[in-house]
Amino acid sequence: MEVVQTIADLRSRIKAYRRKNEKSVGFVPTMGFLHEGHASLLTKARAQSGLVVLSIFVNPIQFGPGEDFERYPRDAERDLAFAEAAGVDLVFMPSVEEMYPTPTRTTVRVSEVTTRLCGASRPGHFDGVATVVSKLFHIVQPDQAFFGLKDAQQVAVIEQMVKDLNLPVEIVPCPTLREADGLAMSSRNVYLSTEERQQALVLSQSLNKAKDFIQSKAATSFTSLELQNLVTQHIQTAPLAVIDYVEVLSYPTLEPFDQSHSTSSLIIALAVKFGKTRLIDNLILQVRK
Amino acid sequence: MEVVQTIADLRSRIKAYRRKNEKSVGFVPTMGFLHEGHASLLTKARAQSGLVVLSIFVNPIQFGPGEDFERYPRDAERDLAFAEAAGVDLVFMPSVEEMYPTPTRTTVRVSEVTTRLCGASRPGHFDGVATVVSKLFHIVQPDQAFFGLKDAQQVAVIEQMVKDLNLPVEIVPCPTLREADGLAMSSRNVYLSTEERQQALVLSQSLNKAKDFIQSKAATSFTSLELQNLVTQHIQTAPLAVIDYVEVLSYPTLEPFDQSHSTSSLIIALAVKFGKTRLIDNLILQVRK
Repeated sequence: MEVVQTIADLRSRIKAYRRKNEKSVGFVPTMGFLHEGHASLLTKARAQSGLVVLSIFVNPIQFGPGEDFERYPRDAERDLAFAEAAGVDLVFMPSVEEMYPTPTRTTVRVSEVTTRLCGASRPGHFDGVATVVSKLFHIVQPDQAFFGLKDAQQVAVIEQMVKDLNLPVEIVPCPTLREADGLAMSSRNVYLSTEERQQALVLSQSLNKAKDFIQSKAATSFTSLELQNLVTQHIQTAPLAVIDYVEVLSYPTLEPFDQSHSTSSLIIALAVKFGKTRLIDNLILQVRK
Repeated sequence: MEVVQTIADLRSRIKAYRRKNEKSVGFVPTMGFLHEGHASLLTKARAQSGLVVLSIFVNPIQFGPGEDFERYPRDAERDLAFAEAAGVDLVFMPSVEEMYPTPTRTTVRVSEVTTRLCGASRPGHFDGVATVVSKLFHIVQPDQAFFGLKDAQQVAVIEQMVKDLNLPVEIVPCPTLREADGLAMSSRNVYLSTEERQQALVLSQSLNKAKDFIQSKAATSFTSLELQNLVTQHIQTAPLAVIDYVEVLSYPTLEPFDQSHSTSSLIIALAVKFGKTRLIDNLILQVRK
């Protein structure tokens, strides 16, 4: 495994690989503090690609004022051991100065799909995500890029950007990984106190309840509002939970879910704060017609 | 010479070329109605590249309401003969539907360098330019792309975008070509009546006067305002000329030109209407310190 800090180094390694190999380049962009969710992306990339590239970069421009950029967990040494074990070939760990050498003047903005959910709670967040991901795609030039569906809106935004800008990369969405008790894996879980960690289980529980509810019903006999209420009410059984949003939308268009539409995928998406820690989770379901 | 209409066709031809050749791919993006200015870009591309790709696409999203998108001159047959004579290998002539198959939701926006000159007169214009050029770069994936300096702000915007987004392409700015009497070549020159065409000579004349003025002076003995007035006064000798702007800025940063700065390049840029036709021209000068 090689570790590089500069764009020029990364490009020359990938160019050298491409010159000798016909196999594809798989890319997993992350903000580090790797967990089993990332490992599942790397495993998929390893299985499909000749060269597996991992980036670790806590991207300042996707954090708003007052968000957790400064305290976002970082552990380069652990991450590198983790990456090596996951079969990564090449790790890109640029500095902020390397990625944004002068005040950046170019923004990639995706509209519509960014107006709700985290796009509404975190203004500018998805501009930062789309901009850094397009930069990383231009630097790595991968054949496939692997993203976790825990950040389902991020996947939708990136898929829209790739389609609209004709980026020559295939996006591979990968299922959310969960702890044994159901909590969706996240680098931010380390922020939680023991009590918060216990109460955060209401998130996955509430989504499971919604799933059971839908599966017990005929396809057209429930409303978005019923689902939203069911999830909200269960989350509210946790005294420490402060709901940011609970929404039921079509996926991946992220528009109001209307069963009369041709849309057949829905997402129940939620963001909930426990103390200072904001957690997200979601459930994406095919609805039988 | 091959002519293709679809992105898939273009990509497969370029991929086939890349597989067999080590030589570079040179790209000249245009809106068609080709003239000698375009020919000079194609000649440069031909000299430097193994494969010369020309795109002809009148990009609707860079035209504002009330601008000349509908009446912009088009002549595919003449353009193709012109391209063949210039040694083009591959022409990409997509439809609007091919480039924007669904309402596009992604915009590439460059700030600062777009606030003045045409960016001020034509709100949204450079969003449309940056977005379509990034799409074309993703589709063609050229090694070099050639742009005329007649659209000097466009070159500055694209260079900023390429730097900020780490696009893997080299931008090659090429000098403005002029008619024998000095008028800068432009597809829009065909709009001019005989009288307008004659009076439009004040544009290049005024820039020549500014150049003579600067060269007659010691480096620090003139001001931006003096240059601006000199150019403006000469343009105003043409009764049909309606000035949109005359500005003196640093180049390529397009900030107010201040001789005490380290900046040593200035641009005198102008946009002037003759009837319905809006013409632009500019002069970029190294200023000795």
